[in-house]
Amino acid sequence: MKAAPPVSPLAPARFPDLPPIAGLSLAAGAAGVRYRGRTDVLLARISGEAALAGCLTRSATRSAPVLDCERKLAARAAGPAAILVNSGNSNAFTGRAGEEAVARLAHAAAEALDLSPDRVLAASTGVIGEPLPWERIAALLPSLAAALAPAEGPAWEAAARAIMTTDTFPKGAGTTVESAGGRVAIAGIAKGSGMIAPDMATMLAFVFTDAAIPPDRLADLTRAACERTFNRITVDGDTSTSDTLLVAATGASGVAAGDDPAFAAALEGVMRDLALQIVRDGEGATKLVEVAVTGAASDEDARRVALSIANSPLVKTACAGGDANWGRIVMAVGKSGARADRDRLLIRFGELVVARDGARDPAYSEEATSAHMAGSEIRIGVDLGLGDGEATVWTCDLTHGYVSINADYRS
Amino acid sequence: MKAAPPVSPLAPARFPDLPPIAGLSLAAGAAGVRYRGRTDVLLARISGEAALAGCLTRSATRSAPVLDCERKLAARAAGPAAILVNSGNSNAFTGRAGEEAVARLAHAAAEALDLSPDRVLAASTGVIGEPLPWERIAALLPSLAAALAPAEGPAWEAAARAIMTTDTFPKGAGTTVESAGGRVAIAGIAKGSGMIAPDMATMLAFVFTDAAIPPDRLADLTRAACERTFNRITVDGDTSTSDTLLVAATGASGVAAGDDPAFAAALEGVMRDLALQIVRDGEGATKLVEVAVTGAASDEDARRVALSIANSPLVKTACAGGDANWGRIVMAVGKSGARADRDRLLIRFGELVVARDGARDPAYSEEATSAHMAGSEIRIGVDLGLGDGEATVWTCDLTHGYVSINADYRS
Repeated sequence: MKAAPPVSPLAPARFPDLPPIAGLSLAAGAAGVRYRGRTDVLLARISGEAALAGCLTRSATRSAPVLDCERKLAARAAGPAAILVNSGNSNAFTGRAGEEAVARLAHAAAEALDLSPDRVLAASTGVIGEPLPWERIAALLPSLAAALAPAEGPAWEAAARAIMTTDTFPKGAGTTVESAGGRVAIAGIAKGSGMIAPDMATMLAFVFTDAAIPPDRLADLTRAACERTFNRITVDGDTSTSDTLLVAATGASGVAAGDDPAFAAALEGVMRDLALQIVRDGEGATKLVEVAVTGAASDEDARRVALSIANSPLVKTACAGGDANWGRIVMAVGKSGARADRDRLLIRFGELVVARDGARDPAYSEEATSAHMAGSEIRIGVDLGLGDGEATVWTCDLTHGYVSINADYRS
Repeated sequence: MKAAPPVSPLAPARFPDLPPIAGLSLAAGAAGVRYRGRTDVLLARISGEAALAGCLTRSATRSAPVLDCERKLAARAAGPAAILVNSGNSNAFTGRAGEEAVARLAHAAAEALDLSPDRVLAASTGVIGEPLPWERIAALLPSLAAALAPAEGPAWEAAARAIMTTDTFPKGAGTTVESAGGRVAIAGIAKGSGMIAPDMATMLAFVFTDAAIPPDRLADLTRAACERTFNRITVDGDTSTSDTLLVAATGASGVAAGDDPAFAAALEGVMRDLALQIVRDGEGATKLVEVAVTGAASDEDARRVALSIANSPLVKTACAGGDANWGRIVMAVGKSGARADRDRLLIRFGELVVARDGARDPAYSEEATSAHMAGSEIRIGVDLGLGDGEATVWTCDLTHGYVSINADYRS
C-alpha cells in the first residue's frame, strides 16, 4: 500500500458524538484481509425482536454478499441478528467460491453468536475479483464475539474505522427523537470515497435504532429515505458492485416509532448526513457541490438533469478550478435527455442568476459568480421553467487528486 | 489565452496528404473572434449540382448554427453551396441574438458568393454563452471569397487549422476510390478534443467528395457511417451543443458512386480516421483505448456496455496508470443497465484473457497484462456470452492533463 492520502479538506473537525443504541453491540478486529496494522472486520450483534431492512446495488455484477443479503432480507423476519463486515476485499466477481465464502462466514458467525445463519448479513468492500481469504475472518470470529461491547462512546468510531478503504476519515451520524411513546435513538456509520454513483453510491452504510419497528415498515422507511439521500450522491458516476445499506431496529427502547413522521425525518436526516460525508470524502475532493433542479416536467426529468450536471467531468473540473463556466451547465442540461427549452432555462450559482431566457443574464457579473465558485461549497441551481419536477443531488469536484488516487489504486 | 498545451503524444507524425476535390474551394482567415495571431474562420465553396448531408447533435440546448443547419439540410436540395465555420465562439445559448447572427452571416456569405442564403451552412465552435461577434466575420467575407482557392495541397491543412479550439494538432483524412465510372476522391477535416461524447462527439467535421450522389442517398450514407464512427467515440462523456458533421458531394468527377459499396466503405474509413484523430487528441490523452464488446443480447446492449466502460472515470484512470484493473471493467459492465450474467462474462486486455466464467482466469498473469497496459494503445475486449450483439467504441485515458486543461479553460 502507498502512503495514505491526506485527510479531505472537507472533513468534519472530528468524529461526532453518537447516542448509544440499546440492544446493539459492536466489535472490531484485524484479520489482515488486505491491510496491515489496522482493523478490517466489524461484527455487530443485534438482540431482541430486531427488524432488518436494506437497500442494495442493482449492478448486474453485484457481489456475493450483496446477493446473499438480497435473499435474507426478502424474508422480512424479526429476531436477533448480526452484521459482519470486512474491508480490503469486496468478494465481488469471485464466482462460486465467493458464494461459498459468504456461506462459510455466516455459519462461523452464527456459531459464535448462537444465531441462525439466515440472520447473519455480510458486507464486503475493497478490491474486486480476488478470492476473499475468508478463513482469516472466520478464525477471528470467536474472539470478536467475546469482545462485543455496547454500541456507545468510542465504540462507534472504532466501528467506522474498521470498514474504511480509501476513505480519509471515519464517518458517523446520529440523533435522538422524542416520539409519542418516549425517546428513541438513531446512529449510523458509513464508508465510501470512490466508485460512488447511484443507484447506489459505492458505499457501505449501517444505521441502527432502538425503536420498535416491524420489518415491513422498516423496509418502506429505508427505501424512501435512501432514495432521497444515498441515491442522490455521486462522486464519479461509477456504481460499485458492493453497495449495501442495512438498517436495523432493535426495539430495545420499547417505543413503536414506525409511524411517527418525526422518526422518519430523523432517519432520513442521519442518512443524508452520512451520504454527504461520503461526498466530502470523494476521492480528491476539494469542494462540495449541490445541484438543485426545479421546474422540470417531472421529478424523474429533474433527477436526470441533476445527475447529468453532477456527473459531467467538465462541470466538475470547472468547480475544481473555481471557474464560473455556466456554459458547461447548459451543455449538461442539453445532453441529459430530459425535456428542456433553451429559452426558459434559468441557471444560478449560489443566489446569483447567471443565465435566463436562453441567454446570459444582463446583470451577470463574472466577479460575483467567481467569488461564489471560490468557496468550498458550491450551489448550482437550474430551473427548467416547465413544471413542478425537482431533485437535488450532491457531488464533489474532479481534481488532480482523483487522478492520482485512481491511476494507481491496486498497486 | 494560456500557452498552448503540448501536442498530444498520440498525434500522427504529420498532416496527411489529402487528394484534391474538384468543385471545392477553400479559404481561411483571421477575424479575431476570440483568438489572436491565428486563423479562426473557414469558408468552403461547393460548386455544381452539389448535394449536402449532415449529422447534428441532438442536445436540447444545441446551438443556433446547428438549429439553422437542421432546417437547411431538411430541404435535401442540390446545387452550389457554402460552408462557413468559425472557432473561438460556439454561438450556443445566445438566445435570439444568436439566431440573428447566423442569419446575418448566411446573408453576407450568400452575397459574397452569389448564392441563396438557404445554401449557406454555418458551424461554430468554442465558448458557450457569449454573444458571437458576427460583424467581424461578416467584414472578412469579401476578402475570403476573393481568396478562395482549389481544395488541394496545403490548403487542406490551413483549413483544418482554422477550425481548431483546444486541439493540439490539425486533423485530416482522405482517400480515393476506383468506382465503376472512374476514380473519385474523398477528403475531410475535423476538430475536437474535449466535450466529446455521443451523440455525437463534440466536434466539427467536414467531408467532401467529387463523386455525384443525390441528396437523399448522401443523407443515408452519412447517417450510417456516422453511427459507426463519430457516434462511437467518447473522451469525457460530455456532449456538446455544437456537434456538426457535414458531407458535401460536388459531383465534379461525373462519377455516380452512391451505390458503390467501395465508396460507402471509403467514406466510413475517412470518417473513422477523423474520429480516431479526435480521440488521439482527447484532452490530456496519453493512451488510445478501444473497447470491443461482443456476445451481447443486442447491438444496443453492446453499445451501452461499451460506453459504460469507455466513460468510466475509474477505467480511464486505470488506463492512465497502466493498471490492469479488470475489476473496474466488471463494475462498468454491471452498472451499464444491459443484460449481463456474471458467470458468462469474459474479459480480455489485448489478446490476454483476464477473467472468464465469473471469476479471474486461472491462467491470469499480472505481468503479461501490465505489459499490454503499458503501451500507448490499449484494447479492452468484453464478451457477454449471451447473443450476437456487438459494438466497438474508442476513448482515451483520463489524466492529470485533462484536469489541468479543464479546470481553467475560460480564463
